[in-house]
Amino acid sequence: GLVHVKNPHLDSMEEDVLYHLALGTKTHNLPEMFGDIKFVCVGGSPNRMREFAQFMRKELGLVGAEEDVADICAGTDRYAMYRAGPVLSISHGMGIPSISIMLHELIKLLHHAKCRDVTIIRIGTSGGLGIKAGSVVITDTAVDSSFKPRFEQVVLDDVVVRSTELDKDLAEELLTCSKETPDFPTLIGHTMCTYDFYEGQGRLDGALCSFSSEKKLQYLKRAYDAGVRNIDMESTAFAALCGLCGLRGES
Amino acid sequence: GLVHVKNPHLDSMEEDVLYHLALGTKTHNLPEMFGDIKFVCVGGSPNRMREFAQFMRKELGLVGAEEDVADICAGTDRYAMYRAGPVLSISHGMGIPSISIMLHELIKLLHHAKCRDVTIIRIGTSGGLGIKAGSVVITDTAVDSSFKPRFEQVVLDDVVVRSTELDKDLAEELLTCSKETPDFPTLIGHTMCTYDFYEGQGRLDGALCSFSSEKKLQYLKRAYDAGVRNIDMESTAFAALCGLCGLRGES
Repeated sequence: GLVHVKNPHLDSMEEDVLYHLALGTKTHNLPEMFGDIKFVCVGGSPNRMREFAQFMRKELGLVGAEEDVADICAGTDRYAMYRAGPVLSISHGMGIPSISIMLHELIKLLHHAKCRDVTIIRIGTSGGLGIKAGSVVITDTAVDSSFKPRFEQVVLDDVVVRSTELDKDLAEELLTCSKETPDFPTLIGHTMCTYDFYEGQGRLDGALCSFSSEKKLQYLKRAYDAGVRNIDMESTAFAALCGLCGLRGES
Repeated sequence: GLVHVKNPHLDSMEEDVLYHLALGTKTHNLPEMFGDIKFVCVGGSPNRMREFAQFMRKELGLVGAEEDVADICAGTDRYAMYRAGPVLSISHGMGIPSISIMLHELIKLLHHAKCRDVTIIRIGTSGGLGIKAGSVVITDTAVDSSFKPRFEQVVLDDVVVRSTELDKDLAEELLTCSKETPDFPTLIGHTMCTYDFYEGQGRLDGALCSFSSEKKLQYLKRAYDAGVRNIDMESTAFAALCGLCGLRGES
């Protein structure tokens, strides 16, 4: 149940500085600070992740639940991190490059802290496809803009293709939980991950737009027919990194 | 000297909401707020861009220069925007997807505000290659991880290749300016833009690393031989978007 890092160089490093989190193995006692973490929730916006931590503290009946939660990454403004008992709530900004930097450093943090059996869940707004506004989509598989379940990672100048499957049991568990809150229609489907919000997601209101409304609708229809139920900008990288490092992940 | 948007759909829209900037054509008088802007400086971190605006206010001898500057995008935590006279200072987060969202909305903002002859400069930390630490690199051309001067933009599911040349005259002007501040070695060179900070830039300290120190050095040597002098995560998208929309840009 430990978190794996897959980097033979790490063992020989005297110190590991998690630069974008303003934490490190020499400056912080990571096992003491984070050893008991069991859940990590990540989302784009720092304010929302603070609100989520406050909400979790209340739900878990923690002392001082009404009070503000301190930003564990206060030494940087790249990401924000809050704690609510065994739950860590972290912002990741927008897009694959931004979430990737955070995940590399988070995975090393959980590894250094010797955390066990960690579940990670990405929560966030996304564009729904052919579903009721306000629906919650639980991702079974993240797909790229060609609807393929893969993440192309550039390693130096080689392209490595990685799997983007998420934990199917966890998806079913979350779906079961959703039955207790019938106000939100909840479903399981594919999430399409794009590198661009405007031209990449068929929006007609960017600074550049070279396609017609019809072309846009044809594309979104093809995505729907391939099983896509919502669109985000992080899920393929999230699924690939969590899968490789032994984190039970959902989005 | 006007900023071009290349989107025929925009003319028929009743309202344009610049969602990630918390601004809009119906809620804000954009020509009044921004019509006199001549320079836009962008960088990753919101705190640094606030400090930069404070520094600019002091340099320009503006009244109340010592005071804090108000965040024009206070209605959102996606980006932060500050003003110092004719200079706008905006954060863009990390990576191509994040800067692209901001640039689409910034370009529309400058268009709606009827700004003329705007120069945009990206400033930020980057990894230097074969140069003295602390050097300033002025980018002549942004290149991708194969050292090619191109940006591959996915439009729906097509790949469109765009040019990444920056304004050569502006680069020379900035180099001339740098002679007044001899403390910082300054040079003109290519900037390589990657989608990933760890595996994409040859770092040996990510959660994943599948290459040797030798392979890393060979890759960086090839980059140097191709004219690359520093590495960032935004320059190709920045150059492509500014070039297409008639913004005089430097990075």
